[in-house]
Amino acid sequence: MAKSHETEHPVKAFGLAATDSSGHLSPFKFSRRATGDEDVQFKVLYCGICHSDLHYLKNEWGISQYPLVPGHEIVGVVTEVGKKVEKVKVGDKVGVGCMVGSCRSCESCKDDLENYCPKIIPTYSAPYSDGSITYGGYSDIMVADEHFIVRIPDNMPLDSAAPLLCAGITTYSPMRYFGLDKPGMHIGVVGLGGLGHVAVKFAKAFGAKVTVISTSPNKKEEALSNLGADAFLISKNDDEMQGAMGTMDGIVDTVSAYHPLMPLIGLLKAHGKLIMLGAPDKPLDLPIFPLLAGRKMISGSGIGGMKETQEMIDFAAKHNIKADIELISADYVNTALERLAKADVKYRFVIDVANTLKQS
Amino acid sequence: MAKSHETEHPVKAFGLAATDSSGHLSPFKFSRRATGDEDVQFKVLYCGICHSDLHYLKNEWGISQYPLVPGHEIVGVVTEVGKKVEKVKVGDKVGVGCMVGSCRSCESCKDDLENYCPKIIPTYSAPYSDGSITYGGYSDIMVADEHFIVRIPDNMPLDSAAPLLCAGITTYSPMRYFGLDKPGMHIGVVGLGGLGHVAVKFAKAFGAKVTVISTSPNKKEEALSNLGADAFLISKNDDEMQGAMGTMDGIVDTVSAYHPLMPLIGLLKAHGKLIMLGAPDKPLDLPIFPLLAGRKMISGSGIGGMKETQEMIDFAAKHNIKADIELISADYVNTALERLAKADVKYRFVIDVANTLKQS
Repeated sequence: MAKSHETEHPVKAFGLAATDSSGHLSPFKFSRRATGDEDVQFKVLYCGICHSDLHYLKNEWGISQYPLVPGHEIVGVVTEVGKKVEKVKVGDKVGVGCMVGSCRSCESCKDDLENYCPKIIPTYSAPYSDGSITYGGYSDIMVADEHFIVRIPDNMPLDSAAPLLCAGITTYSPMRYFGLDKPGMHIGVVGLGGLGHVAVKFAKAFGAKVTVISTSPNKKEEALSNLGADAFLISKNDDEMQGAMGTMDGIVDTVSAYHPLMPLIGLLKAHGKLIMLGAPDKPLDLPIFPLLAGRKMISGSGIGGMKETQEMIDFAAKHNIKADIELISADYVNTALERLAKADVKYRFVIDVANTLKQS
Repeated sequence: MAKSHETEHPVKAFGLAATDSSGHLSPFKFSRRATGDEDVQFKVLYCGICHSDLHYLKNEWGISQYPLVPGHEIVGVVTEVGKKVEKVKVGDKVGVGCMVGSCRSCESCKDDLENYCPKIIPTYSAPYSDGSITYGGYSDIMVADEHFIVRIPDNMPLDSAAPLLCAGITTYSPMRYFGLDKPGMHIGVVGLGGLGHVAVKFAKAFGAKVTVISTSPNKKEEALSNLGADAFLISKNDDEMQGAMGTMDGIVDTVSAYHPLMPLIGLLKAHGKLIMLGAPDKPLDLPIFPLLAGRKMISGSGIGGMKETQEMIDFAAKHNIKADIELISADYVNTALERLAKADVKYRFVIDVANTLKQS
């Protein structure tokens, strides 16, 4: 008998999977590998719902493998460790983010930038080194190489820590790498969703003046009073935008829809940096002259390496940074995905996995 | 009687000017200011013809003021200095590049980046602080504030040094600023004109492996044997381009026509940098996902500050870097401009001003 998802590995697992590009999630019995010498097995407590889960579920990037168990913002408690594991012990709180493997030998890997390894293994819907397909955190149990395990500090609330493993590192890493982490800088954040709201918090913790740039006037009050932003610009208000031209050291742009870059480049000071974190599905118009005239740059960044992800989590714990979440039960997940598609969430859905994901 | 160009200042000058956007250059009598306390007056020996002279002459950027004497790659010998001048003395060889003034007090000026000062005064066709319009180096005499004077080392040939004051600093400065000056790096140079051929020389002097990327197969021999490039890619040859994907630390793109960025971004390694030096007159298509996937960046740069321009000239003198030029007489200049518009020059026209610019 050919091995099924349920029997290919020895450890029984249960989760939520889509079986096709409708993206509808249903109960799914599968299996996890036995804990290898360098593996950490943990009980999943919480898992965030990232916007890329939606893209994967509907196969919008053309690389999805079904059945597909999403989830790459995973937090849990260690249940078993391999004999060579040194990083954590049973009972520790841990997390797994967007990747569970890389080649460990290329230039990127040697530089602690596994996220840019050409052989990166995403946490779900990707071939693992043993030939099986990876399954994500919308499930009751995880196992991962300890190298890709993050320790969650004791003082962190676990539910709101989960989204930091993707949204957190995605915003933290480029602000560090591109030097946008200096006190007194003026940082713009475009888009106030899962990434944007965390970007505001990290930028504030770095000591920046933070201006949120949004198409939605109704986000102003929230941005200023709840998230602690210093200013708010409505991107469609020419007077407001004009008044802020040439004032920003850097801009973190989290919008994945097509949008004009020219006004954002204009907001930058000379030598300012525009960091793209969303991935619009068609090219954006890039005016070159404004780049020349002010030595401005535009770049992109994708998550971060494991060493920096741990640094980010420790920094967040120290500065009391957490995602603003709506905690949901597992049976609400399809509704949550529909709401997420309409940006109807402040700011991240997190599934209360351990308490609500039940085989019935 | 209203003051004319000939009489507004006390020092008689003679040059070549366009009187309208036909761009045709004709003999032109005008005047230069008396040498102020901080001014340096010099006899012009050579002046390079930059592609932006063409844009200005034809008012393609809509900012030209006629009569217009072009030229911002100017080399000469000092004839008079103001009493506060410390940098040079009569008889010294000096140069003036693209700017003759800036505010001297803004953040950019304080950082020795006068080239990004919002009040930068270009060397020609711009209002000077005394209310007159600046005239460039297609003329027999220059006067400039010593701050904007570059000392030309004694061992440099003066004719081939002239283009370094624009083409040289434009390529040298971004390679320094963006860290593309490390031995062993692999640097791509797109376009083999006035800027590109100098970029190859600086990159080689920094110790890089240099690959020229061009649409013209007939430039290959020249690039490899004469300019010292290590490799040559024909950008329209998919196999050649594919074989070089992911191999470059940085690319200096000197092309000012519309062209696709995607293949160039593909040539970069992770964390690679694409530096735009040409200014296409319409926006280029920027695919965002490849930036995210490799933390790649695209930027622009415009000339360089005065301190760095001196550093560049001294570096060029030390490493025997000079522009490859076609020395022309002043009466050939209109023909030279026509040939330049067709890219028919290897690689820079330089006017032999002192020997050939005569009032007849």
